[in-house]
Amino acid sequence: MKRVKLIVAYDGTNYCGWQVQPNGVSVSSMLNQHLSELLGEKIYVLGASRTDAGVHARGNVAVFDTSARMPAERISYALNTRLPADIRIQDSCEVAPDFHPRFRKTRKTYEYKICYRRFPDPINRLYSLFYHWDLDVEKMRQAASYLVGTHDFTSFCTNKPEIKNRVRTIYSLDVLFEPDPTAFPVETPRDCCAVKTGGMITVRICGNGFLYNMVRIIVGTLLEVGGGRLAPDEIPKILEAKDRSLAGDTAQAHGLTLMNIEYEEEN
Amino acid sequence: MKRVKLIVAYDGTNYCGWQVQPNGVSVSSMLNQHLSELLGEKIYVLGASRTDAGVHARGNVAVFDTSARMPAERISYALNTRLPADIRIQDSCEVAPDFHPRFRKTRKTYEYKICYRRFPDPINRLYSLFYHWDLDVEKMRQAASYLVGTHDFTSFCTNKPEIKNRVRTIYSLDVLFEPDPTAFPVETPRDCCAVKTGGMITVRICGNGFLYNMVRIIVGTLLEVGGGRLAPDEIPKILEAKDRSLAGDTAQAHGLTLMNIEYEEEN
Repeated sequence: MKRVKLIVAYDGTNYCGWQVQPNGVSVSSMLNQHLSELLGEKIYVLGASRTDAGVHARGNVAVFDTSARMPAERISYALNTRLPADIRIQDSCEVAPDFHPRFRKTRKTYEYKICYRRFPDPINRLYSLFYHWDLDVEKMRQAASYLVGTHDFTSFCTNKPEIKNRVRTIYSLDVLFEPDPTAFPVETPRDCCAVKTGGMITVRICGNGFLYNMVRIIVGTLLEVGGGRLAPDEIPKILEAKDRSLAGDTAQAHGLTLMNIEYEEEN
Repeated sequence: MKRVKLIVAYDGTNYCGWQVQPNGVSVSSMLNQHLSELLGEKIYVLGASRTDAGVHARGNVAVFDTSARMPAERISYALNTRLPADIRIQDSCEVAPDFHPRFRKTRKTYEYKICYRRFPDPINRLYSLFYHWDLDVEKMRQAASYLVGTHDFTSFCTNKPEIKNRVRTIYSLDVLFEPDPTAFPVETPRDCCAVKTGGMITVRICGNGFLYNMVRIIVGTLLEVGGGRLAPDEIPKILEAKDRSLAGDTAQAHGLTLMNIEYEEEN
């Protein structure tokens, strides 16, 4: 018997999320099905991050136990020939039998993409939030800086009463901006759109763990700030109030991608 | 009666290309249908670039004539509310009645994306060619430099006997590389893959016009060079020979995106 760790990438568009659900196909159920067929025994994977419906991943982590003789390093190759094209294993290796993907010290990195233009870009529509109202990226950066560090993020999560400890540490929260001069063309009249340069905004957040919907609520709040409806220096007060209703909306799932999970002690 | 120019972006995945075909749905047939419904008269668009099945666009150009009173600038907004999510008009404006999108001096820019990694990235799978064999980007750049300028590109196109003049000018041909350290992880054994850093390779080509399949054949040839099966200094001989069989394969359609078309005289 050995424990195998998988790095799992997926396009979440057509899945009801990571977790097995009564309705809809989940990423973990696809892994269970194809691993069981490949290895000839019933396999159940345990995921590090139970991403929501529509959320994507480039590096989620799953582990499972198997008595099959196939070397752990070969499983990525063999499994990828069976999985649908929207799920691809990036790596597989053996880990210690007590390695648990969730109860370990980790650094998780997420990216949320905001496609900031006059009209949607069809090529990015499934992997970014389309946004055409005015945005001030500099103010979003100011607001982001208040969230870095160790805080009680009760105001920035969807309530799950069983989670008592809502203190988390954000190591970094960057608002990156790649301008695209075609996003808001200057040669045509505009009536309801930003006059500034558009482009792709990437909110990259790295922390030791995230509460339910926390990244999406942080992004929704940064959009409030970017649009001028909330001042950057309101963020410390919202943190302190521990009141979800003071933060912004939960930004839509499809803009979010789990980039990677690093473990402090790997084995 | 006025002539209206549209800038058209689309995800080509689900279309049989730009041109109306007996089988499958084309981008131009979607535009014809929804423009006709919007403007209350039969509309036929004329496209600048008749992209193949699976090819994407961020800035194809189409024109049509209409007697409808809707201002040209409003058509983009109104049409986007009717089109499917994988087609979006980026701009609409009135042009001179004799403006023809094809018989004009233009600069067209295409990008071809090569996702160079050990395993496919599901999020990019529809918009880039997955490639995991060894590639030498520097050699690809050397080969590309021989193609810049005015040449007879007979060796780099799929034969269409009705096209007699196969001289075209390539203004620039850049091989861009954005490394990604996770593309070929170093901590696991590799047997058939490149040992170098992987990442996203973008072949960006700008010219005054392109023959049938020309960009895809240039990319297929650059991949031959990158893989060491063809020396960069063979390119001038291949150009001179005017023999399609000496160049590389036609790279798959889904990696290709028509970025934009600039007209020397706009009206």
